[in-house]
Amino acid sequence: MDIGKIIGTVVATRKDSSLLGSRLLVVQPVDAHGASVGSPLVAVDTQGAAGYGEMVYMVTGGDAVGVLPGRRMPVDVAVVGLVDSITVTEEGDG
Amino acid sequence: MDIGKIIGTVVATRKDSSLLGSRLLVVQPVDAHGASVGSPLVAVDTQGAAGYGEMVYMVTGGDAVGVLPGRRMPVDVAVVGLVDSITVTEEGDG
Amino acid sequence: MDIGKIIGTVVATRKDSSLLGSRLLVVQPVDAHGASVGSPLVAVDTQGAAGYGEMVYMVTGGDAVGVLPGRRMPVDVAVVGLVDSITVTEEGDG
Amino acid sequence: MDIGKIIGTVVATRKDSSLLGSRLLVVQPVDAHGASVGSPLVAVDTQGAAGYGEMVYMVTGGDAVGVLPGRRMPVDVAVVGLVDSITVTEEGDG
Amino acid sequence: MDIGKIIGTVVATRKDSSLLGSRLLVVQPVDAHGASVGSPLVAVDTQGAAGYGEMVYMVTGGDAVGVLPGRRMPVDVAVVGLVDSITVTEEGDG
Repeated sequence: MDIGKIIGTVVATRKDSSLLGSRLLVVQPVDAHGASVGSPLVAVDTQGAAGYGEMVYMVTGGDAVGVLPGRRMPVDVAVVGLVDSITVTEEGDG
Repeated sequence: MDIGKIIGTVVATRKDSSLLGSRLLVVQPVDAHGASVGSPLVAVDTQGAAGYGEMVYMVTGGDAVGVLPGRRMPVDVAVVGLVDSITVTEEGDG
Repeated sequence: MDIGKIIGTVVATRKDSSLLGSRLLVVQPVDAHGASVGSPLVAVDTQGAAGYGEMVYMVTGGDAVGVLPGRRMPVDVAVVGLVDSITVTEEGDG
Repeated sequence: MDIGKIIGTVVATRKDSSLLGSRLLVVQPVDAHGASVGSPLVAVDTQGAAGYGEMVYMVTGGDAVGVLPGRRMPVDVAVVGLVDSITVTEEGDG
Repeated sequence: MDIGKIIGTVVATRKDSSLLGSRLLVVQPVDAHGASVGSPLVAVDTQGAAGYGEMVYMVTGGDAVGVLPGRRMPVDVAVVGLVDSITVTEEGDG
């Protein structure tokens, strides 16, 4: 599971019929401190009201996404939760 | 799901019989701004009329592709939609 | 399977209902010598009492996670064991 | 799906019994122009007569490979076709 | 499928119950010439007597591992064979 920030949306009128009605988000993966990591990707929004700039976490892989009810569609990344906060401690090597 | 641009086709007369009749596209992955990212890959075209230079989005993983009807074949990348537009906002860190 | 060290937790009150009650850990992947490799990721804790700084090993992929009883949820990384020790020999090229 | 060139074979007499009789190829992934990309990998040959130096395309992931008849084996890369030619156009940004 | 060399073992007394009795190996991925590539990873040993310094090949992905009898466990890398020899030809671009 990766953390990301919603930075955009994709409009695609022509697509596989199983994808009709699904909102496609552009998500920038970030690390535990909120810094960008790698390239943005496109994820299906399963949480409805996720908005610009919100921190989310997402799962990758059709097998992970496929367990969601009504998600029998060709999708390999899905937003499954909104992040309230991340607590990270760098010490504690023992 | 990744965004890409169609840049070519692959001709392969000898292949697994389940792949007969499937068009193979060479797709250059691009980021949300349309800049190339990484190496081109080969994807099965499930949208029929996708043409050179068109922006598409694709799914990766046999499990994601396998939900498409009639796609019981050894395939791990499929074009599943054509992109009309991408809206990205970089601000909104709050 | 990757080795990692628990460095934090994620709080997410709004999420897919199948994820309610699951603890989300921030895990820093490490190599066989304990040095950090790549970016931290988020994993579901299936071992209950894993604490900060502990070495764990985890599996990636919804298909690997899905075999765990009661883990029919959209998850792609899970902590499945706690590491007591790692023995590595660099010699022995023969 | 990735394009590659066959550069070698692997001999392994001791292996999982489901793999007996399968030929293992060393394949160098190449880009759409035939230039090497990344490290060689090992793929199961499902096309029988693929020879040294031949361009092939392969699928990755046990789920993609698993749809092949009689391929219920622990395999994650398979050669599924031989490439006759690749046509790539770099222009066409419109 | 990747080639690797066994360089160590992991001891983990506390783990998912389905993993009890499985030996965990530290494997250094190598290229077709035996040179190290990337970081070591942890793999389940399905071949019993694989020893230090031995060349093995392994599969990645729970779906590939899952076809092994009695391997209904959360595992994403498994050693499935021991390599006797690798033959690689670099010429043959025609």
